[in-house]
Amino acid sequence: MVDIELKPIGVIHSPYATKEETPIQGVFRPDVTGWVELFPEFAEGLKDIEMFSHIYLIYFFDRSGPVHLVRPMLLDDQPHGVFASRYPARPSGIGLTIVQFMKREANRLEVAGIDILDGTPLLDIKPYVRRFDLFPDAGEGWFTGKPERPKPPGRE
Amino acid sequence: MVDIELKPIGVIHSPYATKEETPIQGVFRPDVTGWVELFPEFAEGLKDIEMFSHIYLIYFFDRSGPVHLVRPMLLDDQPHGVFASRYPARPSGIGLTIVQFMKREANRLEVAGIDILDGTPLLDIKPYVRRFDLFPDAGEGWFTGKPERPKPPGRE
Repeated sequence: MVDIELKPIGVIHSPYATKEETPIQGVFRPDVTGWVELFPEFAEGLKDIEMFSHIYLIYFFDRSGPVHLVRPMLLDDQPHGVFASRYPARPSGIGLTIVQFMKREANRLEVAGIDILDGTPLLDIKPYVRRFDLFPDAGEGWFTGKPERPKPPGRE
Repeated sequence: MVDIELKPIGVIHSPYATKEETPIQGVFRPDVTGWVELFPEFAEGLKDIEMFSHIYLIYFFDRSGPVHLVRPMLLDDQPHGVFASRYPARPSGIGLTIVQFMKREANRLEVAGIDILDGTPLLDIKPYVRRFDLFPDAGEGWFTGKPERPKPPGRE
């Protein structure tokens, strides 16, 4: 199977300059806002984005460390598989966050609940649609009952 | 900003050999099952995936057509921006589906609610976590009230 080449469509701007201060998940800092900047040649593709309350940001973890398929996690010191986790250092390097859409100014979107390092390359935006994406009976696996905590040293 | 090279981590197997028969969203065929096959070198990263009821599949639309930034959609004949849609032909080519986890057999996962063409390259798997991913107040934008329908000719 061949390699796939992706070109970023923009850049994510956030208040987070370091991994240490970046929250583990956006829901832990729902009020923190950032700006999603699309390169101007893609701005037309934002038509009607204002109709949605929440959007998916798909991005590239450009500063993640070495990939381990099984490892202790940010919210648990027990080792889990990387595909049973949201850990940033993963084979694809692809990150996924659901943020609240606040407003659009031309090729820039203000969003809330961001958990992404400033300057992260943006790969895609998709609307979060209640009918397609809400699974109220879904579980939480090993995340169940794990409270937020500072990132353990040596993890990211 | 440089290009990003991605290597697939596996292949998605489904009953859908053509775009015409592939449902527009997985929730329209919640009982249809498929198999997600990880290449053996990544199988270790599935540890504890069985703990989750739902998972995200992130994949590459390897047979999508030409990208139009604004176009009529599968569920609406009005034109919308590609980033305000889940349309397959998009600048990144990245697809996202939430499926129900059924069972694991070594490096293969059986999943339900699949809406992906057979043979699609798999890029990543992440667990769907109720606490992180459930936004019950989210809207539906232009999808509101749009019933399922056959894919209009010339779309995919």
